Amino acid sequence: MPVRLEPLQDFIAAAFVKVGMPNADAATVAALMAQADLQGSDGHGVIRLPMYVRRIKAGGLNLRPNIRVVHEKPGMAVIDGDNAIGHLVVRRAAALAIEKAKTSGAAWVGTRASNHAGPASLYARMPLAHDMIGLYFAVGNANHLPPWGGLDMLLSTNPIACAIPGGDEGPVVLDMATTVAAYGKVKAKAAKGEPMPEGWMIDREGKPLTDPRRAEEGFLLPIGGYKGYGLALIVGLLAGTLNGAAMGKDVVDFNKDDVTRTNTGQAILVIDPGAFGDKAAFKAAVARVARDLRSSARMPNVERIRLPGENSNALRERYAREGIPVATSLLKTLDELAATLSIAPLARP
Amino acid sequence: MPVRLEPLQDFIAAAFVKVGMPNADAATVAALMAQADLQGSDGHGVIRLPMYVRRIKAGGLNLRPNIRVVHEKPGMAVIDGDNAIGHLVVRRAAALAIEKAKTSGAAWVGTRASNHAGPASLYARMPLAHDMIGLYFAVGNANHLPPWGGLDMLLSTNPIACAIPGGDEGPVVLDMATTVAAYGKVKAKAAKGEPMPEGWMIDREGKPLTDPRRAEEGFLLPIGGYKGYGLALIVGLLAGTLNGAAMGKDVVDFNKDDVTRTNTGQAILVIDPGAFGDKAAFKAAVARVARDLRSSARMPNVERIRLPGENSNALRERYAREGIPVATSLLKTLDELAATLSIAPLARP
Repeated sequence: MPVRLEPLQDFIAAAFVKVGMPNADAATVAALMAQADLQGSDGHGVIRLPMYVRRIKAGGLNLRPNIRVVHEKPGMAVIDGDNAIGHLVVRRAAALAIEKAKTSGAAWVGTRASNHAGPASLYARMPLAHDMIGLYFAVGNANHLPPWGGLDMLLSTNPIACAIPGGDEGPVVLDMATTVAAYGKVKAKAAKGEPMPEGWMIDREGKPLTDPRRAEEGFLLPIGGYKGYGLALIVGLLAGTLNGAAMGKDVVDFNKDDVTRTNTGQAILVIDPGAFGDKAAFKAAVARVARDLRSSARMPNVERIRLPGENSNALRERYAREGIPVATSLLKTLDELAATLSIAPLARP
Repeated sequence: MPVRLEPLQDFIAAAFVKVGMPNADAATVAALMAQADLQGSDGHGVIRLPMYVRRIKAGGLNLRPNIRVVHEKPGMAVIDGDNAIGHLVVRRAAALAIEKAKTSGAAWVGTRASNHAGPASLYARMPLAHDMIGLYFAVGNANHLPPWGGLDMLLSTNPIACAIPGGDEGPVVLDMATTVAAYGKVKAKAAKGEPMPEGWMIDREGKPLTDPRRAEEGFLLPIGGYKGYGLALIVGLLAGTLNGAAMGKDVVDFNKDDVTRTNTGQAILVIDPGAFGDKAAFKAAVARVARDLRSSARMPNVERIRLPGENSNALRERYAREGIPVATSLLKTLDELAATLSIAPLARP
């Protein structure tokens, strides 16, 4: 059942205000969460609202945070999120990196004492409005990945996102976990009663695990084997350790615990193509590469060559026009949340 | 048969001087190429010397380059390599990024009009001497990768490297192509008459290709399927297009052609952990993560949990002590090169 962007935002904001978040912050977080749903990142949008509300009620998120710059140089900064909800912290980091990139040409801003902030591409996309490039790295909020050859889940699916302005062809936006499949896909297969393809997970002997009901007995596989393990590690060190945020065995599983500070770390790198030459020429060159790829020869049964971000670009336009589909079960959960909080339920068209 | 580092350097330098490279440049390039062999990156060390010499003789590399900064801001620069051998260009880019990072905390330097520069990790490692972090991205010098679902090889195996100082536990150094296997590994399987494992290559129908003698009929597979395709594309846009260097269909296959300017692009990002807090505390935190990973539980038959760069760190020490193994066939090629150039052959211990 499709819902419109604005009522969705209003509903999320009302829920946050009801549990004590200041109006302006509630509006900011609600807008970002609704944007996640708008671009099809539905695992990171309004579906997270009940968990955030539960965490706020338990005192696990700081509603009056002093989000502040603790280290700063012309090309970098570290922001302490003071245990605010991640959206507020990373939005601030992205805005600061964009400002710094205007002067420095490139700027890296890291966060600590942050929290879950939604889909990586949301923040990598922020510099696009300034014709700039965004790269985003984050430490995931639960460890699902052992080191290569190992059994102890010491790493998360630490995502990488990158958004590059592409002129007429639209931006190139990559948003990927460093594992072959995200854990949400495993859960979806279990819900449908379907087996997983080989290559998603292995069991404790290193053998392929294809029964999603046995997911707890195994591990996600990193992309390219030891390469994906290396990427997850590097991302964790850059987005976590470098900022004094949690990484490795310090990572707090925010699904199992509503109160322990997660000390989540993220990092955003903003690059201004205008510092490298003519902005318009750069966008035209990216668009040319995009066209060359799109118009290249296809394998049998391949309908079209896609560019990273093409799906989410198209969904943003379509859902803005037609409304955002929300599963009936989720709508029911949100109605229950509304009743508990004594706020108006999410308006249907 | 093992050779010592110093005679190897001297031999490479002598060859370059003989074909007209200035002494100082020859010494610089020779040292970097020998370092590649020293760390076990033997596909990117002295084995490339005959090809470089051939290219120089054909006029395909500029021996009197004006390597210069063409764009600059506090956190970035673009260096035009004036068609010099890549080692000279990227070394200059790394040195500039390190200098800028001392003031800016982080700095990104890109190159254009550069050439093949050897293994990615060589440059990502350079900031380690300053207790800094290096990230390196490059456009490969031949396209072996089609877009996901495609048949036209419009992308290279564009590598990513990252080196992070790790105190007592040694640096964490990732150096990876964005394909499951590098093309050199396919050639090695063909030489041994062994089949490739499924997952390295596919044929033009998208079916697994395991006969390395049929490699020309198929394509390398990107890591994580469309994710690796996305990574290769992003790396190419950042290291190539952004700097005005070749990317996509403009990439020149330097194996097939000794004279066409390759306009190779690379990029290095240097981050100073000292700007993010206490340098020593950061290195200790990285070492702690490394120890946690190394001492974690292992799968049956797994001898040890490795960290990225562990092998090359160990080889550097071992080969410095015992000499660098060079294949007999390569020694023969180098002896032939020495005879052609009328220089002393590579000295054996």
